[in-house]
Amino acid sequence: MRIAVDAMGGDYAPEEIIKGTLMAAEKNPNVDLILVGPKERVLPSLTGTRPKNISFVEATEVIEMDEHPANAVRKKKDATIVVATRLVKQGEADAVVSAGSTGAQMAAALLGLGRIKGIERPAIATVLPTVEGGKLILDVGANLDATPEQLCQYALMGSIYAARILKIPNPRVGLLNVGSEEGKGNELTQKAYLLLKEAPINFLGNVEGRDVPYGRADVVVCDGFVGNVLLKTAEGLAGVFVQVIKEKITSTTVRKLGAMAVKPGLKEFAQMMDYAEYGGAPLLGVNGISIICHGSSKAKAILNAIRVAQECVQTHFIEQIREELPK
Amino acid sequence: MRIAVDAMGGDYAPEEIIKGTLMAAEKNPNVDLILVGPKERVLPSLTGTRPKNISFVEATEVIEMDEHPANAVRKKKDATIVVATRLVKQGEADAVVSAGSTGAQMAAALLGLGRIKGIERPAIATVLPTVEGGKLILDVGANLDATPEQLCQYALMGSIYAARILKIPNPRVGLLNVGSEEGKGNELTQKAYLLLKEAPINFLGNVEGRDVPYGRADVVVCDGFVGNVLLKTAEGLAGVFVQVIKEKITSTTVRKLGAMAVKPGLKEFAQMMDYAEYGGAPLLGVNGISIICHGSSKAKAILNAIRVAQECVQTHFIEQIREELPK
Repeated sequence: MRIAVDAMGGDYAPEEIIKGTLMAAEKNPNVDLILVGPKERVLPSLTGTRPKNISFVEATEVIEMDEHPANAVRKKKDATIVVATRLVKQGEADAVVSAGSTGAQMAAALLGLGRIKGIERPAIATVLPTVEGGKLILDVGANLDATPEQLCQYALMGSIYAARILKIPNPRVGLLNVGSEEGKGNELTQKAYLLLKEAPINFLGNVEGRDVPYGRADVVVCDGFVGNVLLKTAEGLAGVFVQVIKEKITSTTVRKLGAMAVKPGLKEFAQMMDYAEYGGAPLLGVNGISIICHGSSKAKAILNAIRVAQECVQTHFIEQIREELPK
Repeated sequence: MRIAVDAMGGDYAPEEIIKGTLMAAEKNPNVDLILVGPKERVLPSLTGTRPKNISFVEATEVIEMDEHPANAVRKKKDATIVVATRLVKQGEADAVVSAGSTGAQMAAALLGLGRIKGIERPAIATVLPTVEGGKLILDVGANLDATPEQLCQYALMGSIYAARILKIPNPRVGLLNVGSEEGKGNELTQKAYLLLKEAPINFLGNVEGRDVPYGRADVVVCDGFVGNVLLKTAEGLAGVFVQVIKEKITSTTVRKLGAMAVKPGLKEFAQMMDYAEYGGAPLLGVNGISIICHGSSKAKAILNAIRVAQECVQTHFIEQIREELPK
């Protein structure tokens, strides 16, 4: 198995990306890892005793976060994400992993790999840490004006992912809505509800925002606008909570002593809420495996994302979706 | 000034509602407070030395949380929220305060008080605790399929509320979106952006979910579906955080001792994040003052909601909106 890694994607590229890839190479001697990036940025970190299963493919350009994704992908034919995706297309890699611009990764996948037949619009899925473990939410930003039919496709693909990769048997799918009863919601969710009821999934009904962090659904389905707002709000809140609690529990000498004693507990909490444990999740609906990582991924997240890519390849994830889609 | 209070609204009705009303009566001897509810549920709590500025108006029915709001309001003509809203309509009260079914309060206000001329759809506003103090977000659930023009009306009303009642000078209005640059978003927010740029408000541009808890905008505008999901996700996350942190920092004897030392800090944090400080916020756009409180309001929240009602009356809030709306 060969996995291409975009060495230049993310806030901590290339150092942490290369570090994570090296960790994965050592851990999985049977997986060939291909680092894709500019020579001068990647090769200096690969000197010394490089694991045998690491190789390098040159790509001279980088797509920055502030570029228009589709335009940049079209213009920069030698960008890391474009070259890495091309390796998958040409059968030289089985999957691509990137922590770079999500929009560019999506555009590169759509242009390079295309869609799975029957899927109108791909979705970006994310594994959200909850008190019941990692749960899938999709779409978190690929398709901002989704149709009821598209939400239904997300539910199907999300169910397969949750069952195969998150290993949740018979995953419960919830439709993100403003109330739990049938009939609640805006035009989109009211219509989607009716379709989801008939779909070959374990449909739980509506779930509300407050149900998400409690992990009441294994797969949460929503349009890309709502999912993006939810995800970023959760990130912002987590940041605020950690920051303010830190300040408050160390503001006096007595509290500082107490803080030392409870620190391992807070660390356990942080670990529980750490998205890096889940590494990344694939673009669902594109005709090839393209794993999206968080922009602030460090080595551990990349290591885990490579594991997710491996599992997607091993379980024939794309074929699974193809087979289970209504014909 | 006379303020009607729905004694039967909310999870802790009638006890905590009556308690909060009594506190408000003692604190503000010049404000007449009218408790509205069934005799047998309210009068027993009003025995003894009842403050002179508390009176009672009977309403024999109660609208439950699971009833269809508009149907219930039409059918139960003697429901507490219907009677309390009628007092405002008939000039016997200047404002109504309730922690009951938000849908029913909205329906009662629309049927009883009507809309302000020029406002197509009222919005439910909520004051969200942030690291920069309380910030307004609207709509959080009144209107699930909003138009760009309606978002623009929310921005105007929200600005007036933030300036007059939250006392934020020249409040910065942010459009909740998936990216910060102009041009980002779904059809609704792309169009709304163009209108907001031209509106007589201090428009900050787009804000993302993660900006909200940091208080980067004083007024956050969104459609009722997205606002509702954001609000409930934030509530759910806050609940999860507090629950898990509590468990983690008291799981061993050493940690328990530390927890005692940091407890005052955690309490300060909880106070900072306590919505009860802000009491409630009015239904924006209805032709009269109707203050919505959180369903789990206790006495302190009711006391603060009555303060908000007072301030809305004193600052001629409805007239302000009427004057500042484009003619």
